[in-house]
Order: sequence, then structure tokens, then C-alpha cells
Amino acid sequence: MTDPLLVPKPTQGHRSLCPSSKKWDHNPKQLKTKHQLLVPWQTSCSVRAVPSRPGAVPVLSGPCAQPPFIPPQGTRDHHPAQMTLLGRLLGTVVSCFKRHGAAAIDTPVMELREMLMEKYGDNSKLIYELQDQGGELLALRYDLTVPFARYLAMNKITNIKRYHIAKVYRRDSPAMTRGRYREFYQCDFDIAGQFDPMIPDAECLKIVHEILSELQIGDFLIKVNDRRILNGMFAICGIPESKLVTMCSTLDKLDKMPWEEVRSEMVGEKGLSPEAVDRVGEYVQLHGGMDLIEQLLQDPKLSQNKMAKEGLEDMKLLFEYLTLFGITGKVSFDLSLARGLDYYTGVIYEAVLLQQQNNHGEESVGVGSVAGGGRYDGLVGMFDPKGRKVPCVGVSIGIERIFSILEHRMKASREKVRTTETQVMVATPQKHLLSARLKLISELWDAGIKAEMMYRKDPKLLKQLQYCEDTGIPLVAIIGEEELKDGVVKLRDVATREEVNIPREELAAEIRRRLEP
Amino acid sequence: MTDPLLVPKPTQGHRSLCPSSKKWDHNPKQLKTKHQLLVPWQTSCSVRAVPSRPGAVPVLSGPCAQPPFIPPQGTRDHHPAQMTLLGRLLGTVVSCFKRHGAAAIDTPVMELREMLMEKYGDNSKLIYELQDQGGELLALRYDLTVPFARYLAMNKITNIKRYHIAKVYRRDSPAMTRGRYREFYQCDFDIAGQFDPMIPDAECLKIVHEILSELQIGDFLIKVNDRRILNGMFAICGIPESKLVTMCSTLDKLDKMPWEEVRSEMVGEKGLSPEAVDRVGEYVQLHGGMDLIEQLLQDPKLSQNKMAKEGLEDMKLLFEYLTLFGITGKVSFDLSLARGLDYYTGVIYEAVLLQQQNNHGEESVGVGSVAGGGRYDGLVGMFDPKGRKVPCVGVSIGIERIFSILEHRMKASREKVRTTETQVMVATPQKHLLSARLKLISELWDAGIKAEMMYRKDPKLLKQLQYCEDTGIPLVAIIGEEELKDGVVKLRDVATREEVNIPREELAAEIRRRLEP
Repeated sequence: MTDPLLVPKPTQGHRSLCPSSKKWDHNPKQLKTKHQLLVPWQTSCSVRAVPSRPGAVPVLSGPCAQPPFIPPQGTRDHHPAQMTLLGRLLGTVVSCFKRHGAAAIDTPVMELREMLMEKYGDNSKLIYELQDQGGELLALRYDLTVPFARYLAMNKITNIKRYHIAKVYRRDSPAMTRGRYREFYQCDFDIAGQFDPMIPDAECLKIVHEILSELQIGDFLIKVNDRRILNGMFAICGIPESKLVTMCSTLDKLDKMPWEEVRSEMVGEKGLSPEAVDRVGEYVQLHGGMDLIEQLLQDPKLSQNKMAKEGLEDMKLLFEYLTLFGITGKVSFDLSLARGLDYYTGVIYEAVLLQQQNNHGEESVGVGSVAGGGRYDGLVGMFDPKGRKVPCVGVSIGIERIFSILEHRMKASREKVRTTETQVMVATPQKHLLSARLKLISELWDAGIKAEMMYRKDPKLLKQLQYCEDTGIPLVAIIGEEELKDGVVKLRDVATREEVNIPREELAAEIRRRLEP
Repeated sequence: MTDPLLVPKPTQGHRSLCPSSKKWDHNPKQLKTKHQLLVPWQTSCSVRAVPSRPGAVPVLSGPCAQPPFIPPQGTRDHHPAQMTLLGRLLGTVVSCFKRHGAAAIDTPVMELREMLMEKYGDNSKLIYELQDQGGELLALRYDLTVPFARYLAMNKITNIKRYHIAKVYRRDSPAMTRGRYREFYQCDFDIAGQFDPMIPDAECLKIVHEILSELQIGDFLIKVNDRRILNGMFAICGIPESKLVTMCSTLDKLDKMPWEEVRSEMVGEKGLSPEAVDRVGEYVQLHGGMDLIEQLLQDPKLSQNKMAKEGLEDMKLLFEYLTLFGITGKVSFDLSLARGLDYYTGVIYEAVLLQQQNNHGEESVGVGSVAGGGRYDGLVGMFDPKGRKVPCVGVSIGIERIFSILEHRMKASREKVRTTETQVMVATPQKHLLSARLKLISELWDAGIKAEMMYRKDPKLLKQLQYCEDTGIPLVAIIGEEELKDGVVKLRDVATREEVNIPREELAAEIRRRLEP
């Protein structure tokens, strides 16, 4: 076994052959070289030379000459070490969701195309559509929220607390080193139902706080705002109602560009009056806690706007609940937070890391927001024939970005990750003992022990011990002629090299005693 | 909360609107009614009436009139009770794979179309292709084996034991009640590498035996054969070499139709001589164990064929190893087993249930084979530029079919499945105690206790207790004015109704003591 941290590098090749994907290949010189390299493979390709019978696979046994294929752009394979890390991460997230009483659901990767359309505004162009092969017109899901709303409406569910962890698909420009993929996991927790204000909303923020704290990815801040406050603010600043949605998406860019640039986009591209935009500019610089909420509730203009007042009163309630949860220290009411998605109707939030982890002098990883969500009271009604609404609030944990940070950190620390859980290696010290090994390992498997052996008739003992060192197996059960005769097994501790004879019938219990405290 | 076993029925509707899906709708009368019903929704649809601004979602708050959408044909949502069952099932499978020292990998749902083509023979037409939206031509994976082979070749991995549990996609005719879907899970375990003969192959059979035994889905039989024995048998019977592949796929139908029908397909459609087919017919009726292997090794014609002899000798070795594993009682060497897929090169196997479970007088579920696999030594070479081979053997557990059986059994037994793991309900007996509940539940969450509360300011105690009964929460932590004053919490056992006051700081430990033995 190779070092589990040495994630193998893909063989270059196939992608460069595809002219349509050229835009992702930033090295035209290399491209040409690869083209030339690939020619001999293609001409000597026995697969293509064999006239294929219908329904039959070309000769599988002959030498083959397909170029090495790699995964589609923006997608990747997960190697065992990555799966171990991902498993730990998802384990933390799922534990938290279960701690809050959520049930799991799952929906298909593909949905009817019509169902997905007109739910994501401009972003609809990023949806992967399936080819029309007869039958329904399908597309890959863009997120888990719209399928969840479809699920609620279809099953007439008006009350559920669910989590859903699954991959979603977006034909976006990938930025893989920063955790931006075309196929990526979403980890969603949502509470649907008609409840008293801000209680489920507060729980969603508590969940973000718990998960980000547990994962120890560094200091974070959860920004909170409310679409009603935003809309009220825009209204009193003199922004026409027809521009509200576009204002939110422009405002959303504030974390990537300075106010001056956002301002000129609002005035220039969006055609808003400079005076109105400047009034907005004053508000969106505000952030704080309960004091700011109180201050804005006294704001002569804002408090006159019905929407804004409702939003502010709910924000006050939210902060009261967050105080009881003891998490206001990491929550900031921030009037510049707008969130890109259109379906939000009330409170919105987004968690950002305050500083990049940079413990080991490694290049830091810019990852942006690591969690986000909000209230969307209108979405389920879009799928209900009678427009019956089911109020919803939820949060999505940006697991891929967190994964990027932890993966970089793991590589930098050269931490050795075990990719298997094997407890014991079954080994033989002499030749002609394969049967003894097979019999013993079978007994261990049947007793629930995680055991491996080498797939060789007569492996050298040293090789068997080396395999344990390489893969982190802590114990070796050695069975030789002597042990067979005496009805014992020699149990060796790989780290200390200590060896003890154990009666064969007590072996499983002894392994368990040593490893399962 | 509703009964978790009452899986909600989808609202009928959308599919019937889609003419292309008519073939799945077997009730044309109902279809018409639905059509009529849907008309008012469509005409009164405010979503469609609002002229949509580019990039904006149509008014989300108004009444909506989309027909209720359902998942695509052959796919389904998984409800919480189903997810609980699926989680148990996959848990058993993953535990077994880990017990045998396998590491996890993952590959993308979509692959380059060119990579998938010409790997599945006739079945290639069942591959879902993605629309050409610019960039690469993609398709959804058909199984996990071909992506695994691509992964090995691309990363030049020559030695790995991996498992992969993920959904695959086939545009097949769905038969959902029998566990046949267009989107379904595969649970694959494979061993890649150059090893001594039949040792990894025997482990794959041991895994099938362990999983089917643990799942307690009834008596089963694992049929085993070898492609080399089949090819040798066909050769000595006088079947021309060009017909070998097609003979395997026709022979594969023997479990669904009698020999007479298979025979006439071979003679009629495939144009083979009746004499040759009759010779095949004699062989394929043979099944047994070590005795049959010995008998065939003595067979004057078969033992003269090099391929068959190799296969028989390996089969003998396999049965020796299976004897050491103690599982020959459920394994049958069966000359009629052919397996549909073309890439197998050596031993092949398939597990079938011997009798349908029918404990409760319910209609039995026909599920066919529940596990299958074999050796495919040529597939990885197809993806390697130099045709370097990596011998592989693996097994796929038919989790969806097993799920169908267990789901039917669960429904029939009216077993109540908990869909959440909540340990304690935080409740208040009087009004104006929301703050006390929020503070206490926050303490419990922070202590790692799985806790829920009602999202109401002043819920009735009876409602809170009823919620526990409905959802199976075993404990209630009641905090009233009295308890607040005394610094205690009243801990109630839902089943016995016993109540004890516990000092608040000891509550989490007490809950853990009671529930985590």
C-alpha cells in the first residue's frame, strides 16, 4: 500500500483531446504535445480496429489503446484518504442534525426539468439538462431546497424537520482549489411548519454555531439580516419596488468588492439615482447586535415602514433567543447581507471564516462563506395546486469548502490518515500454511473482528509485518506450526513488537479488549 | 407527527399531463379526469400570468398554480422511515466491507460519454446522456465497475481493496414494486491486484455469505461458475467461437424461462445446430459441489479443453477455500450460470433467495438475484494507454431488492420505525417559560444530548407528552416554576410515566446513563 496521503496524480491526456473543453486548458503548448502523444495510441488501438458486433463488447483481453480518461470538468474522484476525511466531516454534521431531532429524506438526482425551471433566476442557465432520449425531459438538481419544497407539496406534508445530505450539480466555472465544484455535496437542515416566530430560525443559527465550533476550522462570524428589513430599507431610500430583487443580488457582491464599486454598479448598470443609492450606502455599513436593532427601531424613517418594522421586531426576538443559546458573541446583525437566492422571504444568514488557517506556513485557502440559509415561506406554495404555503427555514453547510480547508491542513501537517479500520492482520511465519490462515481469518470475521491477510500462498513474515506498518494495522495474529499444535495464536502488538500466546478461542475477545475500550 | 410507517401517497397529477409518459399510466380513464382537473390550475396560474423579469423568480408570495410535480419515472423519494431502513441495511453492508479491510472511494455521477460507451454491449442504450450544453459530452454512470476501472487506470493503481456505495442510472423499464428502479444504489466491493489464484475470489463469496446471513432475508444460494468453463464447454459442444458472448447472454435467461425456450432461441434466433445446443443442454443441467468438479475434471472431452481445465482446477481450489470458510453449504457450482455482463473473464457468481418471505400472509415479493459479481481481468487494460492489465474480482450487493423485501416485511408487521434519535423532549408545564426551555435545551445540545422542543411559545404539557408518544422519544425533561426555583429538572420516563427530580447540572449525565448502556 502507498502512503494514503499521497493522492495519486491523474494521468494527463484525454481532456486535451476534446476541443470543446479547450477553455479550461490554459497551456496550449502542452495541449499540442499531448495531441501528438495520443496519436500512436489511437492508431494502434485494437479496440477501434475490431469491427464491433452489435451488442458485444470489443475484445477485452487484447492490448488496448484508449487514452486515459479523467472525470468531467469540475468533478473529481475521492481517494480513500479523502473519503476518510469526508466521512469524519459528514459524521460531525449528521450528528448535529440528529441531535436536533431531524429525520433524513432523499430525493432523486434528476428532476423533471419543468419543476426546476424559474426557481433560480439567472442561475437557471447553470442547470445540467439531460438529453431528450424519449420520455420525460429531465435535469440534474441544482440544490436540495427546491426538491424539498416539491417533496412537501407533493406529499402534502405541512410539518417536518429534515436533513438531506447529497450531491448537487451546477455548470459553473469550477475553482477546485477553493472548493468550488460542478458536482458537490450539500448538507441541508430545514424546519417546515407554522410555528411561533423565530424559534426554528434561532435553532438554525445554533446549528451553524455548533457545527463550525466542533469542526475547529478557526474563528467564524454568522452575519444575519432579514429580507423584510432590506426591502423596507430600499423603499425608504427611494429605490423603486421593481428593483428590489436586483438590488439584493448587487448588494450580495459587497463581500467581494468595495462599496464604491457596488455603488457605481447600482447607479450605472441598474440606473438608480445616486441620492437613493447613497442613502442605501449609509444603512448597509451598519452592523452590530441588540443595540443596533434598538437604534433602528427608533430610526424615524425605517420604523415607519411596516415591512422593516416587522423584520426588526423579529430580529430583536431572534437576538433574545440567541442570547439564551449563548451564541450572540459570534452573530452580527449586518445590513449589508443580502444572499443571492430569490426565494428568501424573512431572516437570512451566512457564516464566514474570520481568518484563514495558516499554521504551517502553507498558502492559505480562500473559501468564502461556509454556511448559509434563511426563511423561505413562499416556495412550497409554488408546487401546491392551491398555492397552500408551508413556512420553511433552513440552513446549508458548505461542506466542500470546509473540506478544502481541512484537506490542505492535513496535507501540510503530514498527518497520516488510516483509510481502513482493520484491527488485525492474520499472518503465518512458515510456508504451506495458507489453509491455517484462511481458517483463522474466517473465525475472526465471523466474530466481527476486522481482519486482513495477504492474498499470497506463502508470503514472507516480514512482508506481512511491513504491510501492518504501512497501513496502520495495530495487531498481528500469527499462526505457525507450533501455535497450531498448541491451539494458540501469537498476538503481536505492531507498535511495541510485544508478542503473547493467546488460546485460539479467546483471540477475538482479546483483540476486542485491546482495541475497543 | 404522523405515523412514520404511513408513507404519504404522492398527489397524482403532473405525470399524466405528459403525453410521453403515457405508457406508464395504465388507466386512461383516470388520465382524462386528471387532465380536466388540471385545467383550472393552469388557467388561474398566477406564476404563468406574471411577465417574468429576466433573472427574477416570479412572485413567490402569491397563490400558485403549478400542478404538483412528482419524481421522474423509475425514481422515487425516500421518506424518513425508508431512510431509517436503508440506513440499517447500508450499515450492515459497510460494516462487512470494512471488516474485510476495504477502503472507500467515490467517483462522479457523470462521466465522459466516450468512456462509458462500448463497455456494456446492448445495454449501452440504457445509459442516460446529458444534453450537449457546450463543453464535454457527458453521461450518467451505468454501474460502479467501469468508473472503478477508469479510476485504477488513470491513477496507475495496481493494488487496492475498495468499496463504493452510490447510485447508478439505467433507462430501463422500471418495476418499482420488485425493487427495479432507474436510479438505484449499488454496493460494490472489489479487489484489484495480481495475487495467487482464487484467494480474493473466495473472499468475495465469503462477503456475500456474511451479508445475506446478517440481513436475515431468508435462505439463499450462491451459484458459482467460470467463464473459462463456459467457453470450454461451448467449444467442445461445437459452438463457434464467434457465438460465445451471445450464448452467455441467452444462457443467462435460464432463470426466467425453461430450457426448452432457451434451446429454441439458440437454434432459432442464434442459428446454432440443434445437436450442438443439445450437447450444451446436457452440461447446463449440472450443478453440485466438489464431486461435480471432480467428475468434470474426469470428463474426457471437457478435460481436454485447456480453458475448461484451467477453470475447473481453479474451481476446485475455490471450493477448498470455501470449505475452510465453512460456507460450501450455501454455494452451488452451477453450469447454467452465465451472467449478462461481457467483461467477466473468470469466476462468476450470483446469489438468489431460495424462498420468498411470506410470514404475514402478504403477497410475496419476487426479487430475483440479490448479489452478483465475478472476475474481470481485462477491463482496467481498456483504459490504460499501454493496455496494462490489473486483474480484478468483485461483488455487488443488490441492496434495492433486499430493501424491497424488508420494506414489505416491515409494512406487513406494522413495526413502528423511529425516524429520529431524539433522547429527550424539553417541556414546560406552565405558560411564559419559553426562555427556560430554550436555555435548558441549549445546555443539553451542548452536552451532546439529542433533544427537541415544540416551536411554540406556550404549548400544553399534554401536547408535548403526546409528541413523545407519537415519535418514540423516551424521556421528557420538564422545567416549571418550581423546578427553576429548586435548580432541578423533572425527568419523566414516557413509557412508565415515572418522574424524578434531577439536579440540573446532572441532567445530561443521567439521560446518558439511562439511554446509553
